[in-house]
Amino acid sequence: MTTHNFTPKALYNTIGIHAPALVIASGDTVTAATADAHGFDWRGEKIAERPNPMTGPFFIEGAEPGDALLITIRDIRMTRKTGWTFDVLSPNVVDPNAVHRFPERHKTEWVIDADKGRAWLAEPPTSLATWSVAVEPMIGCFGVAPDLGQAISTATSGRYGGNMDYRGFKPGVEVMFPVAVPGALFFLGDVHAQQCDGEIVGTGIETAADVTFTARVLKGSKIGWPRGLNETEIFTIGNARPLDQALQHATTEMLEWLMSDYGLDAVAASHVMGQCVRYDVANVFNPAFTVVCRVAREALAGLA
Amino acid sequence: MTTHNFTPKALYNTIGIHAPALVIASGDTVTAATADAHGFDWRGEKIAERPNPMTGPFFIEGAEPGDALLITIRDIRMTRKTGWTFDVLSPNVVDPNAVHRFPERHKTEWVIDADKGRAWLAEPPTSLATWSVAVEPMIGCFGVAPDLGQAISTATSGRYGGNMDYRGFKPGVEVMFPVAVPGALFFLGDVHAQQCDGEIVGTGIETAADVTFTARVLKGSKIGWPRGLNETEIFTIGNARPLDQALQHATTEMLEWLMSDYGLDAVAASHVMGQCVRYDVANVFNPAFTVVCRVAREALAGLA
Amino acid sequence: MTTHNFTPKALYNTIGIHAPALVIASGDTVTAATADAHGFDWRGEKIAERPNPMTGPFFIEGAEPGDALLITIRDIRMTRKTGWTFDVLSPNVVDPNAVHRFPERHKTEWVIDADKGRAWLAEPPTSLATWSVAVEPMIGCFGVAPDLGQAISTATSGRYGGNMDYRGFKPGVEVMFPVAVPGALFFLGDVHAQQCDGEIVGTGIETAADVTFTARVLKGSKIGWPRGLNETEIFTIGNARPLDQALQHATTEMLEWLMSDYGLDAVAASHVMGQCVRYDVANVFNPAFTVVCRVAREALAGLA
Amino acid sequence: MTTHNFTPKALYNTIGIHAPALVIASGDTVTAATADAHGFDWRGEKIAERPNPMTGPFFIEGAEPGDALLITIRDIRMTRKTGWTFDVLSPNVVDPNAVHRFPERHKTEWVIDADKGRAWLAEPPTSLATWSVAVEPMIGCFGVAPDLGQAISTATSGRYGGNMDYRGFKPGVEVMFPVAVPGALFFLGDVHAQQCDGEIVGTGIETAADVTFTARVLKGSKIGWPRGLNETEIFTIGNARPLDQALQHATTEMLEWLMSDYGLDAVAASHVMGQCVRYDVANVFNPAFTVVCRVAREALAGLA
Repeated sequence: MTTHNFTPKALYNTIGIHAPALVIASGDTVTAATADAHGFDWRGEKIAERPNPMTGPFFIEGAEPGDALLITIRDIRMTRKTGWTFDVLSPNVVDPNAVHRFPERHKTEWVIDADKGRAWLAEPPTSLATWSVAVEPMIGCFGVAPDLGQAISTATSGRYGGNMDYRGFKPGVEVMFPVAVPGALFFLGDVHAQQCDGEIVGTGIETAADVTFTARVLKGSKIGWPRGLNETEIFTIGNARPLDQALQHATTEMLEWLMSDYGLDAVAASHVMGQCVRYDVANVFNPAFTVVCRVAREALAGLA
Repeated sequence: MTTHNFTPKALYNTIGIHAPALVIASGDTVTAATADAHGFDWRGEKIAERPNPMTGPFFIEGAEPGDALLITIRDIRMTRKTGWTFDVLSPNVVDPNAVHRFPERHKTEWVIDADKGRAWLAEPPTSLATWSVAVEPMIGCFGVAPDLGQAISTATSGRYGGNMDYRGFKPGVEVMFPVAVPGALFFLGDVHAQQCDGEIVGTGIETAADVTFTARVLKGSKIGWPRGLNETEIFTIGNARPLDQALQHATTEMLEWLMSDYGLDAVAASHVMGQCVRYDVANVFNPAFTVVCRVAREALAGLA
Repeated sequence: MTTHNFTPKALYNTIGIHAPALVIASGDTVTAATADAHGFDWRGEKIAERPNPMTGPFFIEGAEPGDALLITIRDIRMTRKTGWTFDVLSPNVVDPNAVHRFPERHKTEWVIDADKGRAWLAEPPTSLATWSVAVEPMIGCFGVAPDLGQAISTATSGRYGGNMDYRGFKPGVEVMFPVAVPGALFFLGDVHAQQCDGEIVGTGIETAADVTFTARVLKGSKIGWPRGLNETEIFTIGNARPLDQALQHATTEMLEWLMSDYGLDAVAASHVMGQCVRYDVANVFNPAFTVVCRVAREALAGLA
Repeated sequence: MTTHNFTPKALYNTIGIHAPALVIASGDTVTAATADAHGFDWRGEKIAERPNPMTGPFFIEGAEPGDALLITIRDIRMTRKTGWTFDVLSPNVVDPNAVHRFPERHKTEWVIDADKGRAWLAEPPTSLATWSVAVEPMIGCFGVAPDLGQAISTATSGRYGGNMDYRGFKPGVEVMFPVAVPGALFFLGDVHAQQCDGEIVGTGIETAADVTFTARVLKGSKIGWPRGLNETEIFTIGNARPLDQALQHATTEMLEWLMSDYGLDAVAASHVMGQCVRYDVANVFNPAFTVVCRVAREALAGLA
């Protein structure tokens, strides 16, 4: 149960086979520095290229294909007092006939006040002069090396995780990834100080952060897609286009989970899911969209 | 401000031009009896055909094309102690390769105990012997006559409302519909005692109910899609396939709302929406899917 | 086997229950005048409103729900020397990021020379000064009244036909529609002098025409979606969004056809379809897209 | 203009950075042996793993990012007298409610008679006892290394090419790929003796073949997606899910081509495309679907 502090020397724009940056034991905790989505670090210096340069990979001893890697997000400490967003809705989230209503896209700077827990536009238009949002940091992109020796752009996501941009990936949450290569090779980065459902301007408030996580190997825990647990819910992730398919993946993974771990057959699981699931649209911007299927632990409480 | 009690003589399987069943004034309140999605009433007697037979239409005096009709849902009182659901996930919400895992679909009876606020399967499998869900009644299908003299099946939905199956349509909520014909011609029915996000078994807990609503005409309130307000949020509705397009409609309607009523230009509205919107997947089963775009009133509090 | 000449007095913007304009016997042939998509007739006079005003309905004696109506398109004779198109690609058929490349949409006039069999822009840009296209007239919108007493906008389409905008609906082709109401109630209009796959500018070359067709009732020919036959192929139609679902409908209807009429089980039909189907993207512009699944008669020649 | 004969020692399941198997000059012609989609070679021996093991990569001297690689397919000579297909339609190409109609999927053997130009099932059901299809060999999977150092599964496709499964990739056709790394790193394999539109059983008639191609570097030919030319048409390729997005990519790339090489502005290009484009659904089975946008050379003949 060692604790590591890790500052990356090289950052990666793909999730896949790269030389391990740090070898850790199952159960170890790491605090890792991350750069923002365009490669700017805690000083605001550009140390890596877009898209979403990753810190890692972390080689977790004992992880083998067929296992799951459980990441507990312990803390996300923002290391910069600024972030940035794009300033117009992505053209794919509005009616095609409404696209012409937006001016050209620009990067816009935000002030992040972690102590006050608020963020605001550095140079707001008059209408937003006194407007601010809560600071609720989350991890935009993390995951493990995919199968077949693939190395996949950090712009997108898949069964292995990746650029899922889900506001639910915040401190206190546990996330499982399906291990495809020895050591799992875990990567992370792309922290957001805040983000809506859907990431509909194409960014959260992008910033640099130190992330503290614990990594544990769950031997033989075959899973098909990332799964998560928070205080009140269990959830599954589907990454694909269009939203309909992302939803299919997340729903099927929840079905698997309820059938394998909660003693339900397909009909009983349908009854539970059919009255109780909640969906989140995590991102509807990246090459693969992300839909989350949630079930409250309370809804599972009465099961035999 | 008259109060009416209304029991339907004929129910309709299309939303469109039908002879008014009751003429009311703007501001009037109606308590209307509704049958369930397959036409069974409070006694369990079949009084109408599927799909989703509608009570109405109500002709609201003064409503004209270009106005909005504001419906305040005051109460949904279930009038039967039983409901029903389908018992397997709809094949379109799971991976195509997982469809074969489900047996043939059946209707399943539920017991509804409105006093206790719980519902449970009448003949549960062992694994669900002690399992129950909260009773949270909602309106599955309601809306106003569409344009062009259309009469559209109550299986689907559009700008005029229809079979949206959103669990947020519950007592206390206000919903606006775009008026397309004189008198608006408002229909309602298809109450559910409970329903998950997505209506992924193809039903909520379908039952009969008396619905109390107030109808008010908002003169000249041109809106493109249904809009709603609850205690903490404003929201917009998009109805279409696939989910991506339903989301586009809902997002565009929210953009319109923020620009016309909250003094924001396209960039300022993008900033607010880009950090604050929430999406609900209301239904992913009907011919048109329904996505809801929500913004917390709190997020709009700081606007100039 | 009577022959009728029909000039419409009223045109309709919905396909559904309207008073029959002409009652004909099964086997009769009709020559019917149609207006263009915006209601302009052979003189260029506006006689009806958009969208796609329909000539009809024709009540075919003996047609009952569960039958199919077989329409043989015998001739499409354009009655105007001009047509019109929109002048920019629809925003939904290009990458969302490319939408800004187009100026605002305008209607553009074309000259139609039916004798030469060519059409060209009335006021072409320099780059198209000598450019022309073949005249190949087709029916954009036709079909029969849908079920449930629905009346549906002629902008869209469904199982009953409607605004399918398929360039394959040309003289010599036979098309079957599923009858849902007594007399079938057949409507037609919206002729195009030419159109690409997809109708990607949102129009073909829209014009007025006299259409000659023969209507025959096929008793008990239960079909799920429109079907067609031309000299070399049989084909099925799916109407829905997105394209993936339109393709599913067309493919499933072809499967049904091969299984019911060609003595194939699901595996044998899969082998034939799996090496032989062709797809056309008829329209990717209307509220419902249209995909056509074709199989060459030659591919069916060797069947036992 | 050297001619090479190449037999692979190692085959790859990703398209990306791998050590060059052969270095060739621009203009060289190569005859390369390929294995089938499951790794079986001309002898029927398994020499590689699924999916779609690739022959290559070929390093083409002088190719740099920003260039295009032009591949002329000169010959596809099948080297085995057998092929195989799956025997049921993929569940994603039929209505979700129809999926249950198919038995479990199996691999089925075909006899390929290249001399007669026909192929047939080795053990046909009675209904297909005398049925056969034409042999028309095509390349299922080929392309160049993508950007960012990615290595992507040969199950899917993207801007770099990949598993596009288009029946138009046959002898006589020229295909351009956007070069992303020095030397381009060209891979190929996955030959089909025949395939329908859409690859709707999930395979063509999968077999081993010797492919003869010429590779030429087009300096500075920035293209966004694969492009092709055959005797009568130019065409562009879009790879994505759903079909709607694949179509958007192909349509946008055709727009770019007409604007950059044919002297058309966005309106003139819209007129030409709006009356003349044809679409092919190449595959609707792989993780990314493939849509082809074609324009006849004849339609471009009259341009100023």
